[in-house]
Amino acid sequence: MSKSVTFYHAGCPVCLSAEHSILQIIDPTVSIDIVHLGDSPDQIAVAEASGVKSVPALVIDGQVLHLNFGASIADLK
Amino acid sequence: MSKSVTFYHAGCPVCLSAEHSILQIIDPTVSIDIVHLGDSPDQIAVAEASGVKSVPALVIDGQVLHLNFGASIADLK
Repeated sequence: MSKSVTFYHAGCPVCLSAEHSILQIIDPTVSIDIVHLGDSPDQIAVAEASGVKSVPALVIDGQVLHLNFGASIADLK
Repeated sequence: MSKSVTFYHAGCPVCLSAEHSILQIIDPTVSIDIVHLGDSPDQIAVAEASGVKSVPALVIDGQVLHLNFGASIADLK
């Protein structure tokens, strides 16, 4: 079964750097939703419900991995 | 060319959870060194030289991604 993976970011330099690094090593058969919370503020509540506290963050089957620290979710509202 | 990836951890619950999540989605052709800094304290200096500040952390071709926060490197010394 394919994994459900979402990468949340906000276009910040830390986000772009993390995205570049992580996308290099992710299994190409894994489909990733890449969500820009600045462009899609309606997704902020969805991200928060998953446990995302800051961006960039990767949600893998419901488990949140915060990757370094770019911006807190609170600062995106 | 295969990527050079190292996963640093210290056996902490946050480390094990992050390891479980990230290993699910990493390209199986990528070879990963998994280094337990508690068992291999000689690797702490190597990790620090790569920019690792806390565990768990993933170093991908020299770029550090801190995954959530388990323990700071300083606390492992």
